[in-house]
Order: sequence, then C-alpha cells, then structure tokens
Amino acid sequence: MRILSSQVIEQAATPTLWTDIMELALKAAADQDYFTPNRMHVDINDNTLLLMPAVGPDMFATKLVSVFPGNSHHGKAVINGTVLLNDGATGEALALFNGAKLTAMRTAAVACVGIRHLSDPLATTLGIIGGGAQGRHIAWMACHARDFERVYVYDRSPQVIGDFISFMTEKCPNVDVALCEDAQQVVVNSEVVVTATTSPEPVIPNLEDLIVGKCFICVGSYKPDMREIPESIFRLIDSVWIDAEHGKTESGDLLFPLSNHLVSPEQIKHISLLLNEPGALGFRETRLFKTVGEGTFDLFAAKLVYEKVREGDLGEEVSL
Amino acid sequence: MRILSSQVIEQAATPTLWTDIMELALKAAADQDYFTPNRMHVDINDNTLLLMPAVGPDMFATKLVSVFPGNSHHGKAVINGTVLLNDGATGEALALFNGAKLTAMRTAAVACVGIRHLSDPLATTLGIIGGGAQGRHIAWMACHARDFERVYVYDRSPQVIGDFISFMTEKCPNVDVALCEDAQQVVVNSEVVVTATTSPEPVIPNLEDLIVGKCFICVGSYKPDMREIPESIFRLIDSVWIDAEHGKTESGDLLFPLSNHLVSPEQIKHISLLLNEPGALGFRETRLFKTVGEGTFDLFAAKLVYEKVREGDLGEEVSL
Repeated sequence: MRILSSQVIEQAATPTLWTDIMELALKAAADQDYFTPNRMHVDINDNTLLLMPAVGPDMFATKLVSVFPGNSHHGKAVINGTVLLNDGATGEALALFNGAKLTAMRTAAVACVGIRHLSDPLATTLGIIGGGAQGRHIAWMACHARDFERVYVYDRSPQVIGDFISFMTEKCPNVDVALCEDAQQVVVNSEVVVTATTSPEPVIPNLEDLIVGKCFICVGSYKPDMREIPESIFRLIDSVWIDAEHGKTESGDLLFPLSNHLVSPEQIKHISLLLNEPGALGFRETRLFKTVGEGTFDLFAAKLVYEKVREGDLGEEVSL
Repeated sequence: MRILSSQVIEQAATPTLWTDIMELALKAAADQDYFTPNRMHVDINDNTLLLMPAVGPDMFATKLVSVFPGNSHHGKAVINGTVLLNDGATGEALALFNGAKLTAMRTAAVACVGIRHLSDPLATTLGIIGGGAQGRHIAWMACHARDFERVYVYDRSPQVIGDFISFMTEKCPNVDVALCEDAQQVVVNSEVVVTATTSPEPVIPNLEDLIVGKCFICVGSYKPDMREIPESIFRLIDSVWIDAEHGKTESGDLLFPLSNHLVSPEQIKHISLLLNEPGALGFRETRLFKTVGEGTFDLFAAKLVYEKVREGDLGEEVSL
C-alpha cells in the first residue's frame, strides 16, 4: 500500500483539478452508488474519536479523526486524522493518507465550487476571515478559481497570519496579501468573503449595507453552537446554497436561521442543482454558500490523490 | 508513524510474551479504564466493513476489517484488515499494522492462555481441526505453552495442509506434524484439541467416550450459524470458559447450548476468574474454552508490537 503524506497530497493535483473533482463529488453525493453511513463517535474523556466511512462503487474510504482540545495548550494540532482507502472489489487497503491535509484540500476545493458558481467572474478581491490551515488552503485554491489580485485577511493570532503570508507567498507570489484589523475591514474590501473560524458568534458584520451584493462562502461552523453568518444576510438572499443536507441539523449557521424563521427550508438548496443548471442566477445578487462537508468528498479526494500519485509514482510504497 | 508488516509483527515478540500480554488483556477487559464501543457494520453489497475501536488509558486502536466472501473465488483472502494505533494523550497516529496478522497472533495467544490454564501440564499431543492461518498460528504458539511432541492436524484443503507443514517446519522443527484423515482421528490422538474452522455443524465428534478428559480450545465460531462444539461435551463439563461476554450472543457455540438448556448462564465463566485464582480446577477433567475475541486484545497486541519494534528499531518509519 501507499503512504501519502501532507506534502505528496499537496503536490498531487492542481487546484483547478481539485475543484473539478469536487464538482463530481457534489453530484455523486446525491447518487445512490455512493453512501456515507452515520459516523461513529467515541468519547475518550474530554476527547473524541470519529470514524467516517464513505462507500462508492469502486473504492471505499474511512476517515479516522481525533479531536483533542487540550492539544492546543501544548502547541499541537487539536484535530488529527488519517484516511484509509480500500479497493471496493476486494476490500484490500490501497493507501493511507494524512487526514488533516486531505480534509483541508477537499474542503478548500468545495469552497471553490461555491466561488466558481456563485461569485462575480470578474471579482479581483478575496477576503479571508480566519487565516488558519483551512483559511490558507482556500485562499490558495480560490486564486485559481478567480483572478484575484489581492487577498484581505484577518485572524486574531499573529502566528497564524505569519503562516498565512508564508504559504501565500510560496503558492501565489503574484497575489497581494493585505492584513486587516478586524473582520469588518475584510468584508468592506472584498467582493468574495470566506469565513473559516470556529466562532460562537457571527464574524460577518450584521450590517446590510456592508454585505449587499457580495458572495459569502462560510466554512467554519460545523456544530450547533458555532456561527459565522449574521441575521441581516437572510434579508438579502433568495437561496442558501449548501453542500450536504446534514448541515441543517449540525451547523449553527443553518440551525439558527431555520429555527428563527429567517429562512424557510425550501430556500436551502443543494449546490449540485446549480451545477446541473448553470446560469440560473441573477446579476450582482448577494450570495451565500454554507459548506459542512461529507464523507463522499473524502472518498473522491482520496481517489484523486491515489490515481495521480500512481501516474507519477509519488508517495512511499510499503508492504503490510 | 511506523508501518508494521506481517513479517515485523511475527518477529516482534516471542509466543510466551504474547501469551503473557494476552493474560493482561483478558484481565484489563473487565477494567473500566479499557472499553470497546459496539463495532460499526457497513454493508457494501454482499460484503462487510467492520470498524472496531478499543480505548485504553494511554493509547487507543481502531481495527478496520473488510469481509469480502467473493475473494475466495480469486485466490485472495476473504478477510483483510488494518489496525491503527493512536496516542491516548494527543490522538496522534503512532503505527499502522497488518490487521490480519495482528489478529491471528493475538487470537493464537488468547487460545494459549486457555491451554496454559486448562490443559494437562504434561500433555505431549496437540490436535488442530482447521489448519488455516489461524490454526497454524495457534499450533506454533501452543508449542511454547506446552511441550508438545506431536501435532495432529486435519483440514479439507491439501493447499492449507501444505502451508501448515511449511510453517510448522520453520517455527517448530522439533515437533512432529501428523496428518489425519478426519477430525475424529485428530480428537482420538490428541490431549489438547483446537478447532479453528467456520463450520456450520460441530466438527468435534459427538461421542462422550472420545472426548472425555481432554481439553478443547474452540476458536472458529464467531456467528450464530457457526458451530464446532458437539452437544455431548456439555454432559462432561462443569464450566464453559470464555474470553468475552458478547460471545454469548454472537457465537453458535454458546447460543446453541444456552438456548437448548445444555448449559446454564451461571456455568459460563470468564477465563480471567481462573487467572486470578490459579489451581481452582480438578484433575483430569474435560475442559472447554470458547474464544471469540474483542477489541481490547487488539489494543494490547498493537501496543506490544509497537513497544517491541521501537526497542529494536524494526518496522518502516514514514511521515504523514
């Protein structure tokens, strides 16, 4: 089997190919040949182990994610993960992946599907609220979805900002990175705004005048007590585009507006509808895409990397 | 993280140490510092993926097992598996193991705990009914639990018998291997009898005269429709020793005698009772140990191998 490190995963495919593949994954998620059983939660004291299988017609993948909040006190990653890819015909293990990297890449690519189909094709400014690992991967890939000239970024942590600048300087040397003093400054300056925080309160300012006509790609909230999206946005939009139905019961960014009747269930639509019917959107509308992710995306991500590294003979081959 | 192949797992520790560690695992399984959540089943057409986490105070392990019955038509293993071992303090992945080999080794060692505590210390003859991968691993390890001079073996497949002889010749060159024409011939000749089949009907002859006074270690039945143990044995024994409570609802070898009142629930006892109170058994009794296995054994097995290979710097170190 092949061992696919963070570095190999990053190099395996271009941002554009990643985004193309996630479009296929979004369509396949509605296809009965693909399914993701309810994930298994294991509580380990204050920590959590999540087991997330995803099954397709030719391969299946299992993501094992550990969430250890105490790691942050020791300068270690809170979330660690591995993904195992297996042959769907025999069950044999094909490859083991760095799960954190694979997740960062596929989540960035799903965000880019939103940017590709919802944002102004002529947009030149991107805003990132929350510049951590997920934020910087989205910034990188987004610069391949649109010709962004400048990325505005805000994060509370100077360390995170430093890592963001290093990463973007390496990946997108022709794109300016402008540091902002708060999230509002990001929104004011950017046509497309990405939020990638674990905030319990909205990080986008609750001011219609500031947010009207912009495209918002909200990635961070994956639990009921996390929110990034303010109430006022729901007065400006017809539809909330999502990537997975379970987001409605898991993310505060969908639970809150639903339970407070700011949006009706019929207004929440899967983005695959838009992929099948391009051009269905109006001009200069305010747009909102909320992504929570799902196992089918991990399976497609793992298959993409596995197939590319086999072509290029990348990654370490080990025998079990 | 470290990649631990079949070969490395086999070489990491002696059969005696394996059996010692499985005694600790059997005791720990009753300890609340160790727990194994109900395993997750994923049906993939006619195939199955099983996810089996096991949590201890310092590490946790997840076994991912695929059962693809159709593989047998293509000369491939029906059961494939991997085990991932993680640090219990941080969640970080420590090692990936060949799951089939780790399971074969730990199951053999648990069988040897039974041999060590239930069989005649002066026994010189071992019988193996079902000489496949599990049977040959038990034969090898059992020859370190007792001074067996001769191993009687029966299997329907000449290929399996060939592999059994090769393996035993390499591992235990001083032990004779005698081929039998049927299971009854194995039982007649052996003081200790191991069954390692997936038979739907008892493989031990249903004849009290043949089985009285012998020690039976039954490994194969792990589903309700699998049985190796005949009815007559229950007239000869006071206790059925087991390694895991869930065996009572999963194995036909416990379900059948319970539902037919051949044995009472009180007669079924966890073998850890015997480890805490050695010498509680009578002389020359008929003895029965039924093992089904559980996740705590995988966790102890993974820890044993991981610690031994780190001492000896074995296995391949890869970075994710």
